[in-house]
Formats: sequence, structure tokens, C-alpha cells
Amino acid sequence: MTVSAIAVNNGVNVEALIGAREALTKAPEAARFRWQATCNWVNGTHSRATVSGFFGLGQDQQRKTEFSFDADHPEVFASEDLGATPVEYVLVGLGACLTAGIAAIAQHRKIQLRSVSATIEGAMDIQGILGIDSDVRNGFEGIKVSFKIDADATADEIEALVAQSQKRSAVFDIVTNPTNVSVEVA
Amino acid sequence: MTVSAIAVNNGVNVEALIGAREALTKAPEAARFRWQATCNWVNGTHSRATVSGFFGLGQDQQRKTEFSFDADHPEVFASEDLGATPVEYVLVGLGACLTAGIAAIAQHRKIQLRSVSATIEGAMDIQGILGIDSDVRNGFEGIKVSFKIDADATADEIEALVAQSQKRSAVFDIVTNPTNVSVEVA
Repeated sequence: MTVSAIAVNNGVNVEALIGAREALTKAPEAARFRWQATCNWVNGTHSRATVSGFFGLGQDQQRKTEFSFDADHPEVFASEDLGATPVEYVLVGLGACLTAGIAAIAQHRKIQLRSVSATIEGAMDIQGILGIDSDVRNGFEGIKVSFKIDADATADEIEALVAQSQKRSAVFDIVTNPTNVSVEVA
Repeated sequence: MTVSAIAVNNGVNVEALIGAREALTKAPEAARFRWQATCNWVNGTHSRATVSGFFGLGQDQQRKTEFSFDADHPEVFASEDLGATPVEYVLVGLGACLTAGIAAIAQHRKIQLRSVSATIEGAMDIQGILGIDSDVRNGFEGIKVSFKIDADATADEIEALVAQSQKRSAVFDIVTNPTNVSVEVA
């Protein structure tokens, strides 16, 4: 009887992540990261943000690429719709964070993924942001994420993957728990 | 003595927004919006999200343009850095939301803006997401937003603009207060 081992490859270097975890356990100050974006107003509700460097592993980290993002409000708000709305960026971040987690955890659990897709929906009563009703919050009433995953795994294993990804997701934590934001004018 | 009125123009149609507020006060069901993104896994921690339609004013709203966003983890996490990290998308959304608010409120208060820029920094101890220390949260320890604003206004008026923008910002609310997120596998 021959047992053929098929290597699982989701494109995630789990060995490197486990090595990083071991290294940072011994040097926790290197685990202090600072992510950043800069945002420049263009006109109206249109702004352009850039993301490039960040701080981590004890030093400033530069990237090969600078990423640029246009944000705006849609035409129904009398704007020009020259970019995604700010709240949509939060949904993009949430979907991306959970999806990256699923890929990494699947690799660690030797589950081959074939496809992962998600819809991320945020319900919002805009009476809040328009100041019509002070009992209505400005942000989302709630967010619903729905995954479709095709993988060499049982339904229970796939559910467990998604659950573990939530447990370790930075953006899931940011959205579901409060974060202090200080805003200053230089 | 001649008083010359110089029209303030920040590119925001405040009259339309005030009209919308009046209309939605009479028809609050039209204020129920649903924003959405779809996210597709590419490989490793790399995913691609698209933002196009949304629901609002009682119907599905289509846009002229579909916006597409690549997300990934940086090379220090043994990834390929093919897009901004998910948490950076949250910072982009926060900066854009506060900036759009400043432009709209300045228009309403007849303050001419010349330039608005912000840096948005989120501190994170990645011992959380790596599962090293369960007392460390996965998300940001805190976020600091720093604005530089050049406008025809006093320092106090500029401070008040920024304060009012925070008060009405959807993303500021999302980040500073908890939102329920349900995640399901179809």
C-alpha cells in the first residue's frame, strides 16, 4: 500500500510565521508595530491617502511600493464618487483580514484551499451622520460577513478555520471592540 | 464703504445635503443604507476586494465605476506585500472620513479651506495576532490622527471644525465604539 503525501500549498509561509512567533516571544519589544497612512484633501469630499512605510521589528520599514487610495462620497450624497466611501474601506479591511487569516490557518492545518470569497455588508441608518436623530449612531448598525470556501476539508473543519481567523483578526477586533482615537490639529 | 463677498467654495454641495436631511427627516426609511464589499482570495495572504453597488434611498444604487483593492501582508511577515495590509485600510478609511467631514462642515460654516492633510497612526503589539500573549489585543492599542489645515479661519475655528467632524464621522464611531459582526459560511 502506497501513501502519497500531497503537499498543501496555500502560498503562506507558516514556518516563517512560527519562527517569528518564537523570535518575538524572546524579544517582545520588536513586536511593537506602528502602522500609518497619510491623507490629503483633494476637493469636496474627495481625498487621496497613501500607505508606504511602517515601524516594526525595532525600526522603520520601507516598502518597494507606495499604495494610493482615493476616497469620496457617492453621487446620492451630491458628491463625485471619485473613490470608495470611507466606510467601504473598513469593510475591505475586514474582509481582507479574515481572508488572510483563513489562508494562514488552513496552511498550518494542512488544508488545501481552492477558493475563498466573501461578501461583507454593513447596515447603516444615515439619520446618524446627517444629524437627524441623535439616538442613531453614525457607524454601522451591524456587519454581516458571508464566506464561500472551497477546500479539501469537511464543513466542520471549514467552520473551525473561519472561527480561528476571527479569533486572531486585527480588524475583527478593531471593529467589534472600542479603540481610543486621539485627534489633534498641528 | 464696500463690502465684497467672496464665495467660499470647498467643492461640497451643502445645499443638497441640507435638502437630503430635510427629505430623509420626512422619509426615514430611505435613510437605511447597506454598504458592501466583496473579497476574493488570490494566494497566500493576498486578496482582492471590489466595491461597487450599495443600497440606499430605498433601492440598489449602481456606480459608474467599480473600485478594486489589493490587500496583503508585508515582507516582514514573509508575505509578498502586494497590497496594503488590512489594518492600513482602516486607517485610510478613518482619515478619509474625518477629512470629508472637515470639508463639508467648513463649507457649511463658510470657511475656505486651502489644504488639509492628516497622518493617521495606529500602534499595535503584534504579540496579540501571533498568539504569544492572550492579554494583548489583536487590534490597535490606540490611534493618533494629526491634522495640518490651512484655511481662512482662526485656530479656534479650525479646532471646532475638526471636533464637529469627529462628532459626525461614521468611521470614527466604528473605530471608537463596538459593532456587532456576524460571520457565516455559506
